[in-house]
Amino acid sequence: MSALHLKRVEAVRELMADNGWDAVIISGTDPHSSEYPAPRWKQVEWVSGFTGEAGDIVITMDHAGLWTDTRYFIQALEQLQGSGIELHKMRVPEQVSIPEWLHLTFPDGGVVAVDGLCQSFGAMSELAPLSIVDMPDMLDGLWEERPLIPCTPIETVGEEQVGESRADKISWLRKFLLQNECDACLLTSLDEIAWLLNVRANDIEYNPYVISYLLVTQECVKWFVLKEDDGADEDTIDSFDDISSDEVEICSYGELLDGLSVARTEGDRIFVDPSTLSYTVGKQVSDLYGDENLVQGASPVKLRKAVKNETEIACMREAHFEDGLAMEQFLFWLEKEVSQRVVTEWEASEKLTSFRAAIPGYRGNSFENISAYGKNAALPHYCTPAVGSAEIQRHGLYLVDSGGQYIFGTTDITRTVPMGPCTALEKEDYTLVLKGMIQLAMAVFPKGTAGCQIDAAARMPLWRARRNFGHGTGHGIGFYLGVHEGPQDIRQNFNRQALLPGMIQSDEPGLYREGMHGIRHENLVLCKEAGSSEFGEFLEFETLTLCHIDTSAIDRDLMNQEELDWLNAYNDRVYETLGPALNPEIRTWLRAKTSMIL
Amino acid sequence: MSALHLKRVEAVRELMADNGWDAVIISGTDPHSSEYPAPRWKQVEWVSGFTGEAGDIVITMDHAGLWTDTRYFIQALEQLQGSGIELHKMRVPEQVSIPEWLHLTFPDGGVVAVDGLCQSFGAMSELAPLSIVDMPDMLDGLWEERPLIPCTPIETVGEEQVGESRADKISWLRKFLLQNECDACLLTSLDEIAWLLNVRANDIEYNPYVISYLLVTQECVKWFVLKEDDGADEDTIDSFDDISSDEVEICSYGELLDGLSVARTEGDRIFVDPSTLSYTVGKQVSDLYGDENLVQGASPVKLRKAVKNETEIACMREAHFEDGLAMEQFLFWLEKEVSQRVVTEWEASEKLTSFRAAIPGYRGNSFENISAYGKNAALPHYCTPAVGSAEIQRHGLYLVDSGGQYIFGTTDITRTVPMGPCTALEKEDYTLVLKGMIQLAMAVFPKGTAGCQIDAAARMPLWRARRNFGHGTGHGIGFYLGVHEGPQDIRQNFNRQALLPGMIQSDEPGLYREGMHGIRHENLVLCKEAGSSEFGEFLEFETLTLCHIDTSAIDRDLMNQEELDWLNAYNDRVYETLGPALNPEIRTWLRAKTSMIL
Repeated sequence: MSALHLKRVEAVRELMADNGWDAVIISGTDPHSSEYPAPRWKQVEWVSGFTGEAGDIVITMDHAGLWTDTRYFIQALEQLQGSGIELHKMRVPEQVSIPEWLHLTFPDGGVVAVDGLCQSFGAMSELAPLSIVDMPDMLDGLWEERPLIPCTPIETVGEEQVGESRADKISWLRKFLLQNECDACLLTSLDEIAWLLNVRANDIEYNPYVISYLLVTQECVKWFVLKEDDGADEDTIDSFDDISSDEVEICSYGELLDGLSVARTEGDRIFVDPSTLSYTVGKQVSDLYGDENLVQGASPVKLRKAVKNETEIACMREAHFEDGLAMEQFLFWLEKEVSQRVVTEWEASEKLTSFRAAIPGYRGNSFENISAYGKNAALPHYCTPAVGSAEIQRHGLYLVDSGGQYIFGTTDITRTVPMGPCTALEKEDYTLVLKGMIQLAMAVFPKGTAGCQIDAAARMPLWRARRNFGHGTGHGIGFYLGVHEGPQDIRQNFNRQALLPGMIQSDEPGLYREGMHGIRHENLVLCKEAGSSEFGEFLEFETLTLCHIDTSAIDRDLMNQEELDWLNAYNDRVYETLGPALNPEIRTWLRAKTSMIL
Repeated sequence: MSALHLKRVEAVRELMADNGWDAVIISGTDPHSSEYPAPRWKQVEWVSGFTGEAGDIVITMDHAGLWTDTRYFIQALEQLQGSGIELHKMRVPEQVSIPEWLHLTFPDGGVVAVDGLCQSFGAMSELAPLSIVDMPDMLDGLWEERPLIPCTPIETVGEEQVGESRADKISWLRKFLLQNECDACLLTSLDEIAWLLNVRANDIEYNPYVISYLLVTQECVKWFVLKEDDGADEDTIDSFDDISSDEVEICSYGELLDGLSVARTEGDRIFVDPSTLSYTVGKQVSDLYGDENLVQGASPVKLRKAVKNETEIACMREAHFEDGLAMEQFLFWLEKEVSQRVVTEWEASEKLTSFRAAIPGYRGNSFENISAYGKNAALPHYCTPAVGSAEIQRHGLYLVDSGGQYIFGTTDITRTVPMGPCTALEKEDYTLVLKGMIQLAMAVFPKGTAGCQIDAAARMPLWRARRNFGHGTGHGIGFYLGVHEGPQDIRQNFNRQALLPGMIQSDEPGLYREGMHGIRHENLVLCKEAGSSEFGEFLEFETLTLCHIDTSAIDRDLMNQEELDWLNAYNDRVYETLGPALNPEIRTWLRAKTSMIL
């Protein structure tokens, strides 16, 4: 592919020369700062061939670079070979960010062109004093057959799943606006809009969002969404009716600016979140309302959405019960099949999806399955190829990281499965990672504690053996929404967001040895009250994920009694909960798999 | 004392009325933002009677308040009784800082008077848009017999102790100035000046500093210090000779501004640290150099001073050997005496000091001994009264937190000593705190890790039992300098300063039950290299403190094997290291005290 990408970089340079630009930034996101963009906005992949989930390109007349983080270094080096595009490493101590690099490269100023739809309003301020030229859809002229903006059927979710009506959520947001002396709020983040309106679609693979903008004022709610006036499917028409009945006006995606103009009264103050507002739209809104009336802050929806209500929690338990049954069926199938014949990573992945797809309410996977045997698992974000994927051998470790989207929740689970005899090092690594996962699962902490303050609990067993992993320990997860969401996380950063009761996040330490093996154990954990004393109020985690953890690769001597007790209790709970719903053959197998280790 | 303090508050209000001020801030620090001020600057104590080490007063016409943190709540409530001064709590979630409170109280603006010598330049900017009136030594007219600025004999410390010459330190600072395009640096922090000039004195109790300012340019070094032209003692004269031989000019403390004027060339840029520069001096420097030439930043001396060199580390080991011998003699004496007669907290404290004072090179204690029996120990910063202190009983827990200043280092150690039978709760708390101390002592972590990212290691055993403590887990410690120093710490904050090899800090979790007992176990730990692997470079702690930890109050069932192994190894090392230097009676006693628990 390298010749193709060399040509595309050159085409961009011709555009630069024609327009007198010194540099172009090509962003890997969409007009809503989505983590995963629809094909239309995979501009980084189109230019460079890099398929990682995070990366931005900068092209100058004599340099082309891809900025990405630790997760994708190996993949980027492979995919960029021959393209002339160099890797710039992020999340390393010596990192130089894109704005920093541009300032160093053009100390006397320069003209930087961007597709302002795919740049966040907040990020662009870092480019000053460089001149910015905003060229929305800049690549349109070069990219033949560029995909259209997606427009998939829209469904609504009811209070029986999400626990709160659309009308109540709108009322809550209006109260927030009053408290903050704002007249309007423009929501730009797709998961926030889906949450607020109780709508879902499939505009982005794995992410059940509707590409749209939402304006909420005290007087009106306008939803700017792609619609075929006549050609919409029946489900979508029903959904529009339902949504309209809550006095939400359905408007066209392309008519955002008109809609804002109509809704605005002189002097209105509008609240926006600069982290998900695009540069192009941000400038338009700022021109319309006036700079002084643009109130920038973190969207309040983000935090409220992260704190699940009782209904959502109950549904998430159900989702994990169903998902656990699918996982156990898969693991049983895997063990049996591999003992008899050749099974590839791809086949295993497809089989796992088929078990999930059989669950009523299944709406797809929550991300692309990672099905990786042996050294392939050393790539934390390995992409299993449909053709030519590795065979799963009868020894060593197989890693499967996967999850489902259900109308009653979202799951995300990783199991590392010993396929037969394991080396001492594999066992040691397997056990140390497991200790980390258990230590975090057992954590108790005072209210007000942030994830970065307890992240070390999951890492200390690895650190003490001079081992470590380069990704976060935990991310928030949506309710039939994105598999990654904020504002909380558990990682080595300085994110001050406290973990709150009702938040659900992953507990997923790992260990990756290039060319050898990769290990990750991942459960989702619910943060909840853990009682109070004269020393304050405390919180703890409840593990939601239900799927046994294989004990055959455990180095018993590395585990302390408390960790063993946790593991035995967990495996027993998995058996007691899932067993009755499994067929006798799998139930018997699971009983053996979950037998206590002493 | 309350009538006296009521009168003093009223006297301040008269001053306010005469001058048309709306509020007065009285700060608990000195012109160098010292943690512990000399008596002259104990203005908060003079006004309010509060003797805690951290606190500021705000007086308005109808309110008087003391702002202090969790450590001093109980003490403040006692000492403020009847004074009409109310407690404002800091380091609690609902805290309202002094600037915030003033903005809320005077929403339409107001005039706030401060003694600008005792306010940091950095902090005053938070008062805007309130009007600030700077009245240096504001209380002079009210405070009869206010103490003078202290001026104690000055000694120099040699390279054999501190490992680096004055000339080399000055060269290093000049390089820093060149790199940062500055022409001059005004050091205002007393410990930084003492470190840079390799000088010590006793101007502040427990803190071996010289009240002074230091100007360093490429051409000159001017030390602004109190000196009696004829009346200086011989040691000080010798020290001045030594210092002058390194081309450091000795100037008068009162002639700072003149000295700066003489040294300055038009357009010079001067580096200052706004956190230790006073408001009064800051304004003067800014007026002299011009706002645009005032370069504000964290003093580079702070970080460099915190990273001890090989000589300092070797000396600190020696200090801990000597200090450990004193502690063991004291603990032996305590056990024997208490078994035979009445011993008070005060007598014990005095006895401990006498053991330390017998060490050659002893220069005083590093802070006021905390000698607290039973419920008194529940006050983390209990001040043992000379008259009427409690008797140490033959049951329960006695806490002693103390340290020495030696020409070869500084120590800080807390031992909680079971004096006989202990209750189950005392044992449980004793053991959980000990587990926390051991867990942190055993920590290994990657380079780049900050203290706040591993603080939870010391707290998790307590948190899991729904217990906690309200102070930091660890503070940096100086080398024959302040017992508290930054920039690193280990606590529940978001301080990004990484722990670096050579840094020495405390490991001191605790637990305090009001009216019952208080427990703290404290060792000093040296951060050092712990090897590297494909996963990066790692650091660990070496415990420097040498004094046995009593095992008689341990609840064995709460300890895991790893913690027991650590404790047994530590106690054995204490015996093997100190034993040969102790007299046979104490040695035999120590052998028993350090016998393994299984």
